[in-house]
Amino acid sequence: MAFDFKLKHTDKNCGARAGKMITTHGIINTPVFMPVGTRAAVKTMSPDELKKIGAQIILSNTYHLYLRPGHKLIKEAGGLHNFMSWNKPILTDSGGFQVFSLGKTLKVTDEGVNFKSIIDGSSHFLTPEMAIEIQNDLGADIIMALDECPPYPSEKKHVKEAVERSLQWAKRCKKSHHSEEQALFGIVQGGVHRDLREYSAQNTVEIDFRGYGIGGFSVGEPHDLMLEVLNETVSFLPNNKLRYLMGVGNPTSILEAIGLGIDMFDCVLPTRIARNGTVFISTGRLNIKNALYEKDFGPLDSNCDCYVCRNFSRAYLRHLFKIGEILALRLLTWHNLSFIFNLMDHARIAIQEDSFLDFKALFNEQYQR
Amino acid sequence: MAFDFKLKHTDKNCGARAGKMITTHGIINTPVFMPVGTRAAVKTMSPDELKKIGAQIILSNTYHLYLRPGHKLIKEAGGLHNFMSWNKPILTDSGGFQVFSLGKTLKVTDEGVNFKSIIDGSSHFLTPEMAIEIQNDLGADIIMALDECPPYPSEKKHVKEAVERSLQWAKRCKKSHHSEEQALFGIVQGGVHRDLREYSAQNTVEIDFRGYGIGGFSVGEPHDLMLEVLNETVSFLPNNKLRYLMGVGNPTSILEAIGLGIDMFDCVLPTRIARNGTVFISTGRLNIKNALYEKDFGPLDSNCDCYVCRNFSRAYLRHLFKIGEILALRLLTWHNLSFIFNLMDHARIAIQEDSFLDFKALFNEQYQR
Repeated sequence: MAFDFKLKHTDKNCGARAGKMITTHGIINTPVFMPVGTRAAVKTMSPDELKKIGAQIILSNTYHLYLRPGHKLIKEAGGLHNFMSWNKPILTDSGGFQVFSLGKTLKVTDEGVNFKSIIDGSSHFLTPEMAIEIQNDLGADIIMALDECPPYPSEKKHVKEAVERSLQWAKRCKKSHHSEEQALFGIVQGGVHRDLREYSAQNTVEIDFRGYGIGGFSVGEPHDLMLEVLNETVSFLPNNKLRYLMGVGNPTSILEAIGLGIDMFDCVLPTRIARNGTVFISTGRLNIKNALYEKDFGPLDSNCDCYVCRNFSRAYLRHLFKIGEILALRLLTWHNLSFIFNLMDHARIAIQEDSFLDFKALFNEQYQR
Repeated sequence: MAFDFKLKHTDKNCGARAGKMITTHGIINTPVFMPVGTRAAVKTMSPDELKKIGAQIILSNTYHLYLRPGHKLIKEAGGLHNFMSWNKPILTDSGGFQVFSLGKTLKVTDEGVNFKSIIDGSSHFLTPEMAIEIQNDLGADIIMALDECPPYPSEKKHVKEAVERSLQWAKRCKKSHHSEEQALFGIVQGGVHRDLREYSAQNTVEIDFRGYGIGGFSVGEPHDLMLEVLNETVSFLPNNKLRYLMGVGNPTSILEAIGLGIDMFDCVLPTRIARNGTVFISTGRLNIKNALYEKDFGPLDSNCDCYVCRNFSRAYLRHLFKIGEILALRLLTWHNLSFIFNLMDHARIAIQEDSFLDFKALFNEQYQR
């Protein structure tokens, strides 16, 4: 089945929109949150569990898979879906973000980027063409163009250079990608600079992709500034294409961005903080290590009906976490992802009823950041 | 429901027997393997998964739970079943084995044993009466009398003293236990000494328990010697009571012991070796770290139809293990427990068909220790 996106409904009172994405591996209702399976697994979770709690699509990281176990091995295994036994949609990033944030970036030229492996220090050269080739081998349903991600804060001049280079790379990515099965998305950069965002958005849209990632946010800039610039950026993107805000995953930011018309999200936050003992509950964040919960025989969140909240007490989860039991990390991850998926389900319903702003206000009233 | 045991069938060609144990939390078909949930969790596994793969009963360790989170807290939570959300049967040990093997044993007197906590070095005194009280608070379906476990090898004189003391403690345990809901088992000691085993067995049986643990094996003695002495020990135990060989968990030893008439087993082996990357397969043990499996896209065991073998390749499991992903530990544990439960299922069927010896021979032919 060829990739497609149908916008179903836009909330009458804001930019929030509900849609349907069609991929070879199934249909995805948007707005959607994509849990991160960095190295071909969403940490602690089995594919069956992810399905059970409502994951529609997962994201996996090209950078990590390229280094280990290698895209060629995954291709031999029949692609990433087969390799990890996940038969629903997958999105892979281009590797760019990790090259620029994790690895030691050695040199960026117009040709590509030279970086050192975080595993063995070996030197690698990544070009737009290679990013596509690797992602073709991995076989995800959605793949991303290689972009240059400047750190925050950066001089505007440097951000502009990164925008220009990303546009050149985006063109080369599009040119070297031929599979109809895999939808290629472009990425808008430009930091917190409205004019650069406008320039990047318009020129990326000009190249014409199946959807548009918005990169370079949630990297340390003030939250309100992000929302302002994001709002303007979205206005330069076409209505009939998907909009993916990269790397944003806290509940309140997700809701704000949905209100501005974002369709897709990914972030390690829900899974990462779970492994540190922190969960989302209706009233905000809760850290299970807190002595308060030693004899608390109630569930994590009395408004949640996930497997964890139906079966285990705070006291038990605290005990498991304190003794370093893996089951604790699993259950907290399970709950956090359930929380986010549940939030997205409710958001989609609210949008279709034109009540998204009310829903968001109600959520924010309870949830203390 | 009061505790009961019904012997259903003894294989015509050996001592192997199939039976049915009735507890407040359900029926258990024997022979049975009990996975170890040391600190109120079978490491990496959720209660739902344990049920799904066929766990009939789990074992939990009094020593660990007494130290953390404390038996009083677990009692407040409504007992161990409630605390860990496991509504099937549980057996708790007395804490004796851990006191003598893990903790620094400070002093053993006829009154009890003084030991140091492995957590904070604090000093504790455990008596037979306390072992019962703690286990009453935990609320397991089967509880064990406190015994003295001498290390192997020990001087015979020391083993004899431990046998005598264990008998005195067994009497005190029986005297201080009043719950009809919880079945109290005595424990036969005596090391590798036939006469001491006979003496211990006869006198423990004299006290009259609902079942009999056989302790002090699988602590370093030669395998054949264990089987010989075990065989004689069993001959002094009544037919109509359960026989539980404590701490034995490798597939071939389990089958040998079933052949001698053992009904119950527990061991950390299947779960512990899984976390080290080793799994049981039809032909023996396999270590997933081995480079051999880097591009092996077949299942762990082509004769196994567990969730892991139906969904994941050796190559993928190796990848997960190499990157330190928790999912690897889960899946290898899942497979190993499935393997053992499957073995027990087949053993029970074979016994009822009087073909246990053939089944065992066939298994041993394939399985290289």
